[in-house]
Amino acid sequence: MPNLTEKIIRRHLTQGDVVSGEPIAITIDQTLTQDATGTMAYLQLEAMGVDQVQTELSVSYVDHNTLQSGFENADDHKYLQTVARKHGVLFSRPGNGICHQVHLERFAKPGKTLLGSDSHTPTAGGIGSLAIGAGGLDVACAMAGMPFHLRMPRVIGIELKNELRKGVSSKDIILKVLQLLSVKGGVGCVMEYFGDGVKSLSVPQRATITNMGAELGATSSVFPSDARTLAFLKQQGRAEDFEELQADTDAVYDQVITIDLAQLEPMIALPHSPDHVCTVKEVEGMKIDQVCIGSCTNSSYHDLVSVGNLLKGKHVHPDVSLTISPGSRQIFMELSRNGTLSDLIAAGARILECTCGPCIGMGQSPITNAVSLRTFNRNFYGRSGTLSARVCLVSPETAAYSALCGELRSPLGLDYEEPKEPAQMPIDDAMFIAPAAPEEAEAIEVVRGPNIRPLPVNTLLADTIDKKVMIKVGDNITTDHIAPAGAKVLPYRSNIEKISTFVFMNNKADFHDCCKENGGGYIVAGHNYGQGSSREHAALAPMYLGIKAVIAKSFARIHKANLINFGILPLTFVDEADYDGIDEMDELVIEHVRSITPGQTLTVYNKSRQTSFSVSYELSALDVETLKAGGTLNLIRQRQENKE
Amino acid sequence: MPNLTEKIIRRHLTQGDVVSGEPIAITIDQTLTQDATGTMAYLQLEAMGVDQVQTELSVSYVDHNTLQSGFENADDHKYLQTVARKHGVLFSRPGNGICHQVHLERFAKPGKTLLGSDSHTPTAGGIGSLAIGAGGLDVACAMAGMPFHLRMPRVIGIELKNELRKGVSSKDIILKVLQLLSVKGGVGCVMEYFGDGVKSLSVPQRATITNMGAELGATSSVFPSDARTLAFLKQQGRAEDFEELQADTDAVYDQVITIDLAQLEPMIALPHSPDHVCTVKEVEGMKIDQVCIGSCTNSSYHDLVSVGNLLKGKHVHPDVSLTISPGSRQIFMELSRNGTLSDLIAAGARILECTCGPCIGMGQSPITNAVSLRTFNRNFYGRSGTLSARVCLVSPETAAYSALCGELRSPLGLDYEEPKEPAQMPIDDAMFIAPAAPEEAEAIEVVRGPNIRPLPVNTLLADTIDKKVMIKVGDNITTDHIAPAGAKVLPYRSNIEKISTFVFMNNKADFHDCCKENGGGYIVAGHNYGQGSSREHAALAPMYLGIKAVIAKSFARIHKANLINFGILPLTFVDEADYDGIDEMDELVIEHVRSITPGQTLTVYNKSRQTSFSVSYELSALDVETLKAGGTLNLIRQRQENKE
Repeated sequence: MPNLTEKIIRRHLTQGDVVSGEPIAITIDQTLTQDATGTMAYLQLEAMGVDQVQTELSVSYVDHNTLQSGFENADDHKYLQTVARKHGVLFSRPGNGICHQVHLERFAKPGKTLLGSDSHTPTAGGIGSLAIGAGGLDVACAMAGMPFHLRMPRVIGIELKNELRKGVSSKDIILKVLQLLSVKGGVGCVMEYFGDGVKSLSVPQRATITNMGAELGATSSVFPSDARTLAFLKQQGRAEDFEELQADTDAVYDQVITIDLAQLEPMIALPHSPDHVCTVKEVEGMKIDQVCIGSCTNSSYHDLVSVGNLLKGKHVHPDVSLTISPGSRQIFMELSRNGTLSDLIAAGARILECTCGPCIGMGQSPITNAVSLRTFNRNFYGRSGTLSARVCLVSPETAAYSALCGELRSPLGLDYEEPKEPAQMPIDDAMFIAPAAPEEAEAIEVVRGPNIRPLPVNTLLADTIDKKVMIKVGDNITTDHIAPAGAKVLPYRSNIEKISTFVFMNNKADFHDCCKENGGGYIVAGHNYGQGSSREHAALAPMYLGIKAVIAKSFARIHKANLINFGILPLTFVDEADYDGIDEMDELVIEHVRSITPGQTLTVYNKSRQTSFSVSYELSALDVETLKAGGTLNLIRQRQENKE
Repeated sequence: MPNLTEKIIRRHLTQGDVVSGEPIAITIDQTLTQDATGTMAYLQLEAMGVDQVQTELSVSYVDHNTLQSGFENADDHKYLQTVARKHGVLFSRPGNGICHQVHLERFAKPGKTLLGSDSHTPTAGGIGSLAIGAGGLDVACAMAGMPFHLRMPRVIGIELKNELRKGVSSKDIILKVLQLLSVKGGVGCVMEYFGDGVKSLSVPQRATITNMGAELGATSSVFPSDARTLAFLKQQGRAEDFEELQADTDAVYDQVITIDLAQLEPMIALPHSPDHVCTVKEVEGMKIDQVCIGSCTNSSYHDLVSVGNLLKGKHVHPDVSLTISPGSRQIFMELSRNGTLSDLIAAGARILECTCGPCIGMGQSPITNAVSLRTFNRNFYGRSGTLSARVCLVSPETAAYSALCGELRSPLGLDYEEPKEPAQMPIDDAMFIAPAAPEEAEAIEVVRGPNIRPLPVNTLLADTIDKKVMIKVGDNITTDHIAPAGAKVLPYRSNIEKISTFVFMNNKADFHDCCKENGGGYIVAGHNYGQGSSREHAALAPMYLGIKAVIAKSFARIHKANLINFGILPLTFVDEADYDGIDEMDELVIEHVRSITPGQTLTVYNKSRQTSFSVSYELSALDVETLKAGGTLNLIRQRQENKE
């Protein structure tokens, strides 16, 4: 009676019991990195002294920093290319596509575990992988052959019934789930899809849903592997990777949610959160300025042919700028071959590279006060590069139809040709560069540009922390708030000193200077602190600035793991009301920090107000050991030294 | 016996005699602007109080600032779209293509005059237009119906004999001319092509040559209009725009240069000047890191099909990043339709938008110390965005073949299919937005984002200038040195206060602060000061910083006109040796400035060294009037006030 999640975890379990909330460790079969998080991951892999990666497959993609507005991006690409070749990692060249889309096409397999240094790694759940996003350091550890540590997730079963109506898309399913559960509804959970509605969805349609499970805060999302999975693998010329895999018919879930696909309507997430969801009908007629189609969520062949068919013979509205970024070179080639690309260009679409592009704020920032409809996964404040913009998340069909109309319109019941899947996609892996044979690896020189700087490392955990509160923030703070993305900041992802100058830039412009003046301190936060992207820069840069602890009402999973990895204490208010009793620049003292023990609490003395309150910490024994050592890299080094 | 240049000028002459060096004025039939210079041009048009443009056709293109790394670009596009609609200007949307390529396809006509706020406006000379680059203010004046003032150019006849061999391209012709004449060899001249070799070149091939005539410093370059011109116009569905036009058989030129096309080899311009030209053979085997194909010089259908045929079935070298930017949406559609685009993607090319892109430093900056082969027109130091990069200019064929080999290779004699021109290109003008009918224009609101700032205006010319030398520079200083391009600076083109902080940033980092501290002063320069781009920001920003005069050995034409337009004195050393007697921060005094009279000189007293020297000024009566008024806008206002 196990569910699918339990089945895959049991296959990979190296430690712990498969009981919700218990610390477990699992082996990792595959890893992926992208360039914006990858440079750190490989610097860490090098720091660990690992010669060759130990996974079945590790792939290094370049899809984020591709505008190249200065030498930094290209230097990062060259570093990634050479370090991959030296250490046994497959390298996917810029232009080859978005990591999650390409990985789904070429490498993801049912029943395998995948750890990726990108929060949308669960995309591969669409093919039946257990795919998890993590910080770069966790991925480096996995490449080094170490198991991945997590708490056994709760498994939420999502039953899909019936079929979608025309004009309603799988994006609307995940937006509906977000409406039901909110951006913190999936924290500590795997979302497992089942029911008769599953078979109506192709693998890329499923992948849209598992992709955006990241916005629920979920550890992963997963679909069964069935006949549709086989069809997809055949299309990719790799039927041999198929394995049928599903939950037992009497599988038990910690919670079950049922969605009737036939009742579903086109949905929209309004600014500035992916869970501010309502039906398109409710806000139909809203004037729009920009439409962006693409991203790891909605750039599949099916998505773009839908869009092409919808736009065919028509022209984008004169007040709307429409951009389209194909998900992969494979899709781009097929769109070019079958004439869809001609339709898109003729309709007035601006065709961008096969990259994340505007989703990560790499270009296409909309006009001041714009309404921008995007098929992406996040509409966090400022992420588009235009602070005054109001970004909404919709399906490709809603986006395309609205682009023609100049205002938000529901495509429900619209007359357009349904995409037909080709029997075989054009398969050409020439934009991958294979790693060198291990015996040739030593001779390979890793090329490091001047922007690729040494890794900063934390000090041992102090027994007393007596510091001031550098910033106090509210609920649902994203890693985009902490370490912003966008074309102006991302080029410095390999340079922690430089990137630390942008920390919290839209919340508190002088955060960096304040930390420098005070020798660091605390961050105080509300619920779901650190949701969103997996970027470990949101922990690394604060660590570099001397942040010793974050005291929050609750944490997002990946960010909490990143804080521990870099030796920053993640503390939780025992009584949430104590949050109100702290102000920025209050001086807080915590003693006996090195005595932290799983299950205990610590007392925080607010020196400025002469009050005290308690904080707890949900930490495993390994977490405690890591924090005391001042982070994972220090711990690995200690262990290596002890061995010698 | 007139040559072609004289014929076209005579048709448009409103003032002066057609004698080399004499001040003349001509009517302007068409104008074009691009976004990086256009916002200023239209702000100036508005400042003149012009309701509707007075030309036969004025087009506003968007092709430079298309990365949109912040709200500024999109806001500029919206301003340009709305101001165009209000004032009778046709608007070409972002994604529609590069201004010169699109103008050639859709609008340029034999025998017409075209004034464009971009130095590569002479591209339209390929179809037999007399097309001239100018500052935005000159273009604004032309839109207002005023004639364009210039000195009657010398006409250099370039006789082309025989035909190019396979693998040699029209780019190699203009590189050869640059080798012969240098970047200042065309100053004050029109380059007029004739001879039996002309008929072997299509209009786009001719346009590559006239385009890059800008790099000679030439006022314009022009080809006859013949059967090939008619064929091109038919391909564009506008045979009715054809007129046969050529020099009389006994035409006289101020100088004649003969090039035997059959003897020509693939050529290359080495860093950092378009005239550092040698044959590809001489430097063959040089390892390369990047290849960029596109730009207004080499992004035609013929160019890209050549590249596609050369790359077909092969893959770009693993150490080379290859980007391709089609010149226009029309070309992009045709490449998509006929399968060339599939070949390009399959070969591993990164397909960029139909814009200037990397040519203007908008992205694709190469790696540190890179060798970058580009089919572009300029390889000025730093223009790629990577200061350490070595940029070389080559033909599309040399670029493509080298991209496969990973090193510079000559495509001479290479076996690949020659492009065939389609009888008709796909014609679809949906990405143009027509101006409103005049009676509806008043109701149109021009949308101005917060980065679009009011125009700074100069004061009346002072009678005594007593200021210090803010910077002293050498020969061939480009407008890229004065007002840099690139992704980090271009977004501020509508904001002179902001853009003035970047003036001379790669020559003297504190130039801006130095001007602010000293209340402005002088610029001292060598020969050909202000070559390159037509950007008037290279005059406007120094004017804003208080620069009162530039004392140089000689000036590039457009920049000199821009200096006058904004009330900065362009002075020339009578004895070039006096250049050596000045240092930065010397205090120079010029008296009786308001008494300047064409043909006279002024005395400059170097207070710091107690020496004196003479400077001359080649100014027309109108130039003097303009300078005294503090620039063209002031002069127009004065005249309007005098009328009222």
